Amino acid sequence: MAADDPSGEASGPSGLADPSRVQAFSDAVFAIIVTLLVLDLRAPHTHPGGMLDALLREWPSYLAFTISFVYLSVLWLNHHALFRLIARVDARLNWANLALLFSAVVIPFPTATLAAAFAGGDRYDERVAVALYALSATPLSVPWLVIFLHLVRHPELRVPGIGDGYVRAQVPRPVIGIVLYGLSGVLGWFVSPVLGVATFVLMIIFHAATSEGVRRLRRG
Amino acid sequence: MAADDPSGEASGPSGLADPSRVQAFSDAVFAIIVTLLVLDLRAPHTHPGGMLDALLREWPSYLAFTISFVYLSVLWLNHHALFRLIARVDARLNWANLALLFSAVVIPFPTATLAAAFAGGDRYDERVAVALYALSATPLSVPWLVIFLHLVRHPELRVPGIGDGYVRAQVPRPVIGIVLYGLSGVLGWFVSPVLGVATFVLMIIFHAATSEGVRRLRRG
Amino acid sequence: MAADDPSGEASGPSGLADPSRVQAFSDAVFAIIVTLLVLDLRAPHTHPGGMLDALLREWPSYLAFTISFVYLSVLWLNHHALFRLIARVDARLNWANLALLFSAVVIPFPTATLAAAFAGGDRYDERVAVALYALSATPLSVPWLVIFLHLVRHPELRVPGIGDGYVRAQVPRPVIGIVLYGLSGVLGWFVSPVLGVATFVLMIIFHAATSEGVRRLRRG
Amino acid sequence: MAADDPSGEASGPSGLADPSRVQAFSDAVFAIIVTLLVLDLRAPHTHPGGMLDALLREWPSYLAFTISFVYLSVLWLNHHALFRLIARVDARLNWANLALLFSAVVIPFPTATLAAAFAGGDRYDERVAVALYALSATPLSVPWLVIFLHLVRHPELRVPGIGDGYVRAQVPRPVIGIVLYGLSGVLGWFVSPVLGVATFVLMIIFHAATSEGVRRLRRG
Repeated sequence: MAADDPSGEASGPSGLADPSRVQAFSDAVFAIIVTLLVLDLRAPHTHPGGMLDALLREWPSYLAFTISFVYLSVLWLNHHALFRLIARVDARLNWANLALLFSAVVIPFPTATLAAAFAGGDRYDERVAVALYALSATPLSVPWLVIFLHLVRHPELRVPGIGDGYVRAQVPRPVIGIVLYGLSGVLGWFVSPVLGVATFVLMIIFHAATSEGVRRLRRG
Repeated sequence: MAADDPSGEASGPSGLADPSRVQAFSDAVFAIIVTLLVLDLRAPHTHPGGMLDALLREWPSYLAFTISFVYLSVLWLNHHALFRLIARVDARLNWANLALLFSAVVIPFPTATLAAAFAGGDRYDERVAVALYALSATPLSVPWLVIFLHLVRHPELRVPGIGDGYVRAQVPRPVIGIVLYGLSGVLGWFVSPVLGVATFVLMIIFHAATSEGVRRLRRG
Repeated sequence: MAADDPSGEASGPSGLADPSRVQAFSDAVFAIIVTLLVLDLRAPHTHPGGMLDALLREWPSYLAFTISFVYLSVLWLNHHALFRLIARVDARLNWANLALLFSAVVIPFPTATLAAAFAGGDRYDERVAVALYALSATPLSVPWLVIFLHLVRHPELRVPGIGDGYVRAQVPRPVIGIVLYGLSGVLGWFVSPVLGVATFVLMIIFHAATSEGVRRLRRG
Repeated sequence: MAADDPSGEASGPSGLADPSRVQAFSDAVFAIIVTLLVLDLRAPHTHPGGMLDALLREWPSYLAFTISFVYLSVLWLNHHALFRLIARVDARLNWANLALLFSAVVIPFPTATLAAAFAGGDRYDERVAVALYALSATPLSVPWLVIFLHLVRHPELRVPGIGDGYVRAQVPRPVIGIVLYGLSGVLGWFVSPVLGVATFVLMIIFHAATSEGVRRLRRG
């Protein structure tokens, strides 16, 4: 490095950073969100003998907890697979990753709202909660799109041996995410809240199935 | 890697991942659950001079905190020892590990319910709480069974030098867990809640004693 | 090492530590603060049909959450860039880093107070909240100043190739922080709370723009 | 390893583990406790114009937060320095470390109780809170004693070059901790609560000053 700057005066760190610290930070964020979810499961305060009823009445919390945990696990698996492609992190990848973490950190909020709405049983509230969930989940796919497009254009950020074709084949994944999450919000609002939720679950399964990345169908 | 795919077009990352990130994520989850437990210990709000009584009245919270901390520590020690066997993580190990973390993240909830039931003193509530605890703890052993059986069948995922016999000798550990946790639930519900809790404590001691893995009794 | 101390009796670890554990600890702290912010976003408890109104009424929480997340992300990016300069951590750097983390951990508190004050709409409360924010944010820059000045005087703590000029060029950044945060508090108290908040947002943008470090304008 | 067990059947992992995962887990626990402390600082809910009074009335929370943060930071610095001596972790070190983390995780609880007692102003409550604090802090030194004594007897667990004399010189540190914390509880209960608190602050300063380890006074 000193060789780059013979004066040895103004030389700073090189522009590209090692991804390990970004990964460790992201891992910690995912681990914390996943674990904070349990704070919504609380020992019920009831009159003597009322424990069973009190526990059973909280079923939407258990469902919301399970769905959130699975969703965040799937996100983490996707993130894990993503960083197996990346050798260097530049400022744009760093910011896109922070945007991705922002969307992930938010998830417990619309999930809890969805659980509260379905526990309440009011159809208008359910439509509002489904729309809120779609509004939160749709932008989550944007940083993924930014990252994959950036990796297509900058092979120098990739782990050696990761081909252009493979990276390009990942681009449709976040696009499908944006379109389908948006659609699920529209369906949930105009047609049926349950249909909206069903589309969310479908999206989580889709993200789980493609978490290790997709290969192109035609021969390389 | 480029050598594997001369076209350099569609090549993605290799299928098997380094376990270090899975470990770091799991460590963070364990560290967070263990630490969140303290949120259930709160400075009591009392009338002047009532601090001592208020503190003493909260004894079931202290007991629940201590048992949960020990249990989660034992789980972490087991996890720590497990990952000393694993050199590569495939998708099935990753999912089984997430299922394991799910069961661990849940633990504070049945523990707090157990404390609340015994503080309340209603026998029916205690039976419900013991059953809930058994229901939560029994499935915790399933991912351990899946992982050990998977490692038996896939020596290529193991650290070099870890023998078949050693891995096979670990399989009965989660089976004992499933049977005894189930039994403790049945005992707690039909015979006596205190007996159920005693069986839980016994199970934690068993898991502590075998956390470093067991060796086969007969000669290799 | 034994060679340094032929008696082999009193030799302890060398005085300078590897920065990786300090970094990992700091990363975890940043990850946790950023994630804990979501605890202030709660599913609203309302009468049936009141979900939308209840959600909309909470807008200052969303704004406070977003600003805090961005601010802490920017701090983490700055910290990330800082540790790319550091090869060894001595006791003073360790303490300065802990002071830095202290100021970062505090941030959610003045931010939430600011949100509460603007939601309440009382002008005196807004002035108090802006002053509290400035009081919390101004000392945050002090450990940065201590660290950069310490790195100027101790090249042996720096990664090889990081020049004196580069490190010296970073010193004005925390000085600007101290002056402008102090100014924003004065403006917010004596002139207008909104002007104070605007200056805070400006400061976050300034820290974001300079997170990768600044280069000297004149030629090295 | 396969060489140790020609049959390749029953060979398990070697008994001594790498300390890096134990360190990472401990770091995460320290980072989380330190950060959770901020949850006790909450934006006050007051009538319009009452923000300043409400903020000022919470001064014991700010003091408790600051003391807890400094104390846990000092503990982490001590832990950090301890692990620079350790090359291998056996089962006893692992358990002692978990006991150490248990005592650290508990700290926010007696600290908050102390703050509540002094805010309340009842002298009997203050004595109770000081005794609780001493009861919580005294056992914290026990695992440190166990660890240093274990390292004296097992040089093979130490980083090469760490001499017997150096490790033996650390043994009095936790002994002083046990004696003085116990004394502070006795003083706080029988003489004056403020004197007890003063002794705690003294202990934190003592631990801060010796966090990097002590050297023997006489020549090696």
